[in-house]
Amino acid sequence: MKPYKLVSREMKPEKTIVRIGSVAVGADRPVIIAGPCAVESERQLLETARAVKQAGAHILRGGAFKPRTSPYAFQGLEEEGLKLLARAREVTGLPVVTEVLDTRDVELVASYADVIQVGARNMQNFRLLREVGHAGKPVLLKRGLAATIEEWLMAAEYIAATGNDQIILCERGIRTYEPALRNTLDISAIPLVRQLSHLPVIVDPSHATGNRRLVTPLARAAVAAGADGVMVEVHPDPANALCDGPQSLTPAMFAELVHEIQLMAYSIFSCARLSAQARI
Amino acid sequence: MKPYKLVSREMKPEKTIVRIGSVAVGADRPVIIAGPCAVESERQLLETARAVKQAGAHILRGGAFKPRTSPYAFQGLEEEGLKLLARAREVTGLPVVTEVLDTRDVELVASYADVIQVGARNMQNFRLLREVGHAGKPVLLKRGLAATIEEWLMAAEYIAATGNDQIILCERGIRTYEPALRNTLDISAIPLVRQLSHLPVIVDPSHATGNRRLVTPLARAAVAAGADGVMVEVHPDPANALCDGPQSLTPAMFAELVHEIQLMAYSIFSCARLSAQARI
Amino acid sequence: MKPYKLVSREMKPEKTIVRIGSVAVGADRPVIIAGPCAVESERQLLETARAVKQAGAHILRGGAFKPRTSPYAFQGLEEEGLKLLARAREVTGLPVVTEVLDTRDVELVASYADVIQVGARNMQNFRLLREVGHAGKPVLLKRGLAATIEEWLMAAEYIAATGNDQIILCERGIRTYEPALRNTLDISAIPLVRQLSHLPVIVDPSHATGNRRLVTPLARAAVAAGADGVMVEVHPDPANALCDGPQSLTPAMFAELVHEIQLMAYSIFSCARLSAQARI
Amino acid sequence: MKPYKLVSREMKPEKTIVRIGSVAVGADRPVIIAGPCAVESERQLLETARAVKQAGAHILRGGAFKPRTSPYAFQGLEEEGLKLLARAREVTGLPVVTEVLDTRDVELVASYADVIQVGARNMQNFRLLREVGHAGKPVLLKRGLAATIEEWLMAAEYIAATGNDQIILCERGIRTYEPALRNTLDISAIPLVRQLSHLPVIVDPSHATGNRRLVTPLARAAVAAGADGVMVEVHPDPANALCDGPQSLTPAMFAELVHEIQLMAYSIFSCARLSAQARI
Repeated sequence: MKPYKLVSREMKPEKTIVRIGSVAVGADRPVIIAGPCAVESERQLLETARAVKQAGAHILRGGAFKPRTSPYAFQGLEEEGLKLLARAREVTGLPVVTEVLDTRDVELVASYADVIQVGARNMQNFRLLREVGHAGKPVLLKRGLAATIEEWLMAAEYIAATGNDQIILCERGIRTYEPALRNTLDISAIPLVRQLSHLPVIVDPSHATGNRRLVTPLARAAVAAGADGVMVEVHPDPANALCDGPQSLTPAMFAELVHEIQLMAYSIFSCARLSAQARI
Repeated sequence: MKPYKLVSREMKPEKTIVRIGSVAVGADRPVIIAGPCAVESERQLLETARAVKQAGAHILRGGAFKPRTSPYAFQGLEEEGLKLLARAREVTGLPVVTEVLDTRDVELVASYADVIQVGARNMQNFRLLREVGHAGKPVLLKRGLAATIEEWLMAAEYIAATGNDQIILCERGIRTYEPALRNTLDISAIPLVRQLSHLPVIVDPSHATGNRRLVTPLARAAVAAGADGVMVEVHPDPANALCDGPQSLTPAMFAELVHEIQLMAYSIFSCARLSAQARI
Repeated sequence: MKPYKLVSREMKPEKTIVRIGSVAVGADRPVIIAGPCAVESERQLLETARAVKQAGAHILRGGAFKPRTSPYAFQGLEEEGLKLLARAREVTGLPVVTEVLDTRDVELVASYADVIQVGARNMQNFRLLREVGHAGKPVLLKRGLAATIEEWLMAAEYIAATGNDQIILCERGIRTYEPALRNTLDISAIPLVRQLSHLPVIVDPSHATGNRRLVTPLARAAVAAGADGVMVEVHPDPANALCDGPQSLTPAMFAELVHEIQLMAYSIFSCARLSAQARI
Repeated sequence: MKPYKLVSREMKPEKTIVRIGSVAVGADRPVIIAGPCAVESERQLLETARAVKQAGAHILRGGAFKPRTSPYAFQGLEEEGLKLLARAREVTGLPVVTEVLDTRDVELVASYADVIQVGARNMQNFRLLREVGHAGKPVLLKRGLAATIEEWLMAAEYIAATGNDQIILCERGIRTYEPALRNTLDISAIPLVRQLSHLPVIVDPSHATGNRRLVTPLARAAVAAGADGVMVEVHPDPANALCDGPQSLTPAMFAELVHEIQLMAYSIFSCARLSAQARI
């Protein structure tokens, strides 16, 4: 018997659709979330936001509170960053997703963000999960660095247990022995989670690889495997990004990714239609 | 500096195409290899071979020598299995790929098979790699259970160093901490290997998951990520298969997989054309 | 160049000794921390505390705030548990170590505990690390479920950067592909951390294995590898423990462990003396 | 139910003692196997053999057939290396253990070696296991790079199924996400294998770490955990070794290791006696 209940398919056979303004995550069309790793300045954020909007992104991402391995690394602009995200939303109309690190900041982050992100390092910060659940906003829950799929769904269960079912799961690569890339994208998690849970699931190929040259083929693979969307890092000048430069797409590369995802989604849609016909 | 030479992109920028009769692995069209885990009987093999041929498979797979974790498990029909594979080739026209386990059997296997497979457990059986390289047949080299991409390419280098560059790499899932599935399909290996090497690379979603319900979405993802083909297990009666029943597709499921792969390949081809146009 | 500074051997060649009342962690004698996984009741805690005191434990452990994978599992007695720990300290004279999960609880926990524990799931909860650092009490920092040694030392650096160098590192097993035990004890981390850092390092063989029959041989191995102590779970009635029963020692098993550790420590001490003489 | 039979404790409750001349592996005293990674020359081998003999080693190790990741690396002196090992045995009286890679070489290797080694990369080379089992010599079976304990015992079962129970298991580190060392020594495997199987089990701390500074503390830990012996690499001039120089001890370091192991074994023996008395 599965240890999770509220997030299971058994509990709710039909797919959950998470609605963020006019964007529907978990419906037919793959959702594209894009933006910089960290909010660095008004200019950097607005330039990126306009570019991703124009290329076809549906949601803007950007970190104001950054969980960094080193205490000496850039830790984010904090509330100033949240204000810039709100400004970018005004300018582009894109809803914004941003991460929260501390139970004491949940209310603040919820007052600016359209979607609250719980990052990989906090997937089992159970107090944070509860507080975020209670904040009354959709939650993007990243899979932990070495979390099992069951643990990930149990973390979602913590949020769901607060009465909040607006949860988007995000696969971002797991930690394995393979040293060639930053993480190993667990693509099988996509169809498996779709069987086990009614929650939508997206893929972050930027963190999964740490290598921008692999982001587009893996975004295609994610959609082909059934993901409800992708989240990618875009920076107008990756070489000078304050974090995660090597995995950030340029706006031009991002535009190409959007085209390919759309074509792929059309193909998948045709597959589904074809399969449905085959069954008649 | 990379430790491999002959198999590197630097040594040979253009893609290697492995030709098996009229089948070209590494060219535009994804190649589909299908058949039972083990050759069990003439009836089982011919029934499967006819079904996969009709559904659109290009190559027939089937194990005559089986590497089994237990000394008490079915070890394969050995030479009798090879003879049945040859018979299935006569009947269907499909070329056959089958595994060899022992340096002493390479000559025998090469006399029946169109492609010789080196399995995951023998990826660093260096004597076998050399012997197989010298046999003068194309080689399908599976990635080891916990092999790094560099070690995998070094294993290919052992074969290439014998003068044989007709090598197909096959990603079949790696060993990680995640217990939900048999292995973790390393989808990132596909675009990464395409950057590092000129050799074609395919995916085995059956071994990667051990779960037939995940095989088709992952086959789609493989092709979307740029794989040159897929290898899947098909059995006319999975519930009574002598090995790997839970991951074997029925012939009907396999037919659907072929349709989806073809549609996906068309989409990818369109992506490539679109990207090329975008660059003009 | 190493990314950590304050916790490195280069910065401070001599070993740091963490002093908790009259107990010195990092000095010659291995320190033994013992107690139940969770504080369940006054009777359970006092019975355990008296037993481990009598057998030779130096510090009492017990969880009042429990990080549980399931929202439906017992989450700890919270402040009531802290009060019981303080009561057990009065009765036995043993200092107490207990975990904190939330930045908002640090002040409360610090007002009861002699050592504040940061658990494996919070090793990269950077806000918690900072808050705990500022609390002015010694910190026991467990290694994350799949943290590298470098990340672990960087987490310690977050604490040290607050001006608090009273940090005890605790290896508790890492996540690997091996399914036979709960985790894989990374015994090599002990001599390696001793080379890289001046901080004391102990081992938790209970969480590392999840199996009480392996706790004593691994405690011996920890001390033989150079650990400054061990932390083990002891319960008067493991079969009815509210958490981690299968890995809890009975008081009698614990008494035997203490004897063996003392003998082992004497042997190691003799080794050191012998080696020193050999160098003269 | 366990899938292995002949090697299980259930089948044979008393410990198996593997006898190699006058050396008994699995009896009270830990056995020390030492020598160079590869046999390089008569001078190098004899110098090492004399040094390890004098320091207290019981068995000489040395590779004549070397499984190397690269086809361009030194592959061993092959039969010439076997002859040198036989010469070193004559000179020192130490029995020799050496690896075989190919079923076709088993008879040859068996004609020179006292113990035949199956290396980590060949742990699931099932044909080799069978052939080695039939050779009528004791076998040293290394655990595979990422083998589970169950797979390791199943590999031993292949050998035992030939009627040969003279098998020594050797833990040599497993592959994990941790990049600090070559492998992660799975110390828990020692007490666990002792519970599951009657076969003796030793530890190779040289391959487990790839770092000579960690070899001695981990050898101590191995014996403290209950290992029946250790196998370490020793080279008269590690800086110029043809393979594995960084993990090779100098003869002086090895002499210190032997002293420490002897002291540790005495301590363990005392522990056992003390525990036995405690039970009376």
